[in-house]
Amino acid sequence: MLTKVRIVGAGLIGTSIGLGLVQAGVKVEMVDTDSESQALAMDLIGGERITQPDLVIFALPSSRLSLVINEEYELNPQSTFMDVGSIKNDVVLEVETVSALSTRFVPTHPMAGREIGGAGAARSDLFQGRSWIVTPSADLAPESRAVVEELIEKLGATSIELSPKDHDRAVAKISHMPQIAASLLAKQLAGTPAEWMELAGQGLRDTTRIAGSDESLWKEIIYSNRGELRTLLINLQNDLQRMIDSLDDPAQIASLIAAGRSGKALIPGKHGGKAREYSYLPIVIDDKPGQLGAIFNECAAMDVNVEDLVIEHSPGQLSALITLALSHNDAEKLSAHLTSIGWNVHPIRK
Amino acid sequence: MLTKVRIVGAGLIGTSIGLGLVQAGVKVEMVDTDSESQALAMDLIGGERITQPDLVIFALPSSRLSLVINEEYELNPQSTFMDVGSIKNDVVLEVETVSALSTRFVPTHPMAGREIGGAGAARSDLFQGRSWIVTPSADLAPESRAVVEELIEKLGATSIELSPKDHDRAVAKISHMPQIAASLLAKQLAGTPAEWMELAGQGLRDTTRIAGSDESLWKEIIYSNRGELRTLLINLQNDLQRMIDSLDDPAQIASLIAAGRSGKALIPGKHGGKAREYSYLPIVIDDKPGQLGAIFNECAAMDVNVEDLVIEHSPGQLSALITLALSHNDAEKLSAHLTSIGWNVHPIRK
Repeated sequence: MLTKVRIVGAGLIGTSIGLGLVQAGVKVEMVDTDSESQALAMDLIGGERITQPDLVIFALPSSRLSLVINEEYELNPQSTFMDVGSIKNDVVLEVETVSALSTRFVPTHPMAGREIGGAGAARSDLFQGRSWIVTPSADLAPESRAVVEELIEKLGATSIELSPKDHDRAVAKISHMPQIAASLLAKQLAGTPAEWMELAGQGLRDTTRIAGSDESLWKEIIYSNRGELRTLLINLQNDLQRMIDSLDDPAQIASLIAAGRSGKALIPGKHGGKAREYSYLPIVIDDKPGQLGAIFNECAAMDVNVEDLVIEHSPGQLSALITLALSHNDAEKLSAHLTSIGWNVHPIRK
Repeated sequence: MLTKVRIVGAGLIGTSIGLGLVQAGVKVEMVDTDSESQALAMDLIGGERITQPDLVIFALPSSRLSLVINEEYELNPQSTFMDVGSIKNDVVLEVETVSALSTRFVPTHPMAGREIGGAGAARSDLFQGRSWIVTPSADLAPESRAVVEELIEKLGATSIELSPKDHDRAVAKISHMPQIAASLLAKQLAGTPAEWMELAGQGLRDTTRIAGSDESLWKEIIYSNRGELRTLLINLQNDLQRMIDSLDDPAQIASLIAAGRSGKALIPGKHGGKAREYSYLPIVIDDKPGQLGAIFNECAAMDVNVEDLVIEHSPGQLSALITLALSHNDAEKLSAHLTSIGWNVHPIRK
């Protein structure tokens, strides 16, 4: 039974786990060497001081694991331990050096994240509907495995067992190579006239979104998984050479673009519980203070709950487009109401 | 004055223009060599037969322009003409072959699109808040320019003037190179075990989203702009080689990833200003209607302009974290004010 959890590391992943667990009725304490992060995380999740945790979660870069693992083990000699790092082979080797630990340490990796980090970016539903990989050793104690499975289930994720080696090969392909591609693509933007950058559309934004990620985190992930990555990057480079060689040949260009479409089609659609379906209500407003407040006051008056909001402004334009994410019923209700009192409301999009 | 418009080509862009214009009170006729697409588009927009259009819009692949341009010119000898193609140098050359046309032909390119095509995917607000590039020749008639400016304004977009050459260089960098990178990245997924593909997260989905695009459209765009693209792709390839050579050197990896982050930061947020540096003010609120309205009312009272807003909440959670993007001064001012009247404000992040 999972009743008390200690989370070491108040970043995005640690705090998101904390949020989800507290909502599931588990007592959680967050600790972090950075006292501001720790305070924000404890405040956000409604954490409390605990002793004798059932589970200690290491939610910090794998390279810092060795700095805390012995201390945490001595502090909590009865606990189960798990980590949430991006590479598993390294962690398995690290844990094997603390021989007393290996039967109670579960290497795991939740397939969830955001390009922004820190406790402030945490979300209790970050793991909802996501996969959570576990790479247990052969001698793992059954009760430790059970504690970790309970955690994964409480956070709405699905546990998937892989060998550490298969894990590292899989994430090289579906996570680390895309990160490198996005970063190198974004690097090409250096020196582009600001006037041209104004023309950037959603395609550029999406392909480079994760290029905003933190290099100190990624240098470690890429370096740790360099063996798997080398082959993948050389394949990518060969295809880039093929494209360069094909620029004078539309049929060859088409075949490379079509191969990309086939590859993309292998990515499964979203499934798993949460994937909440919102309706999107676009409203054109004057771009000045007061407009958003007025709209949110109407939302409150109509008992409409705004799930999310995107504000798009245009260079030099006096109006802005805001798009509210709402439940379908709320979108219908709000659209009719705002239209009736004169707002410039556009058709609801699914 | 723009009162009657003929749109040649009932695809995504043509039909979206038609939708937006009809909503703005303009009479529109859509024509297409595919009679089904034409009928669908006319239906969708509420089109009608017209004669003597003020403006004829070519919304078809640039390679098909030469097949219709003379016929349309003879049919509508008094009209202004424009195209909406992705490459402008080719179009300018094409138009120059019909010498009587060059004073009344405006080459343009709206920076909007979707990864799905066809009349059925059209949206009247597709251009709202977007940039719309015009590359007018030196001898363009002022009244033709005015008609096109009126169209752009009616569709809620902002017109930006560039030379055809600068246009083609700019879109090579911010649109065509990202398409190629996304397609080649997605191509690498071929043959990946389905079990591994289940682990795909948002990063892979975003970086490969546009890889779903149509190869018959893109082979033409890439081929037409191959001169600009060759240099860009060779630079990208050199950086990929640098990454491969750096896999054993975490500091070098970090510097490449950091260069990507700097490049991404050049993509303007809102308002078009060069990537403006915002400050981020996190506020923990009760997750119920009225809270956001109250905060925006305080913003308006303090004359604080909210540049963007992210709402984080979770199913079943009683509090939500909202993060306001503000100028640094506004963030300081608002933080002090909200704190003084009892809101749960967390430290400003840069």
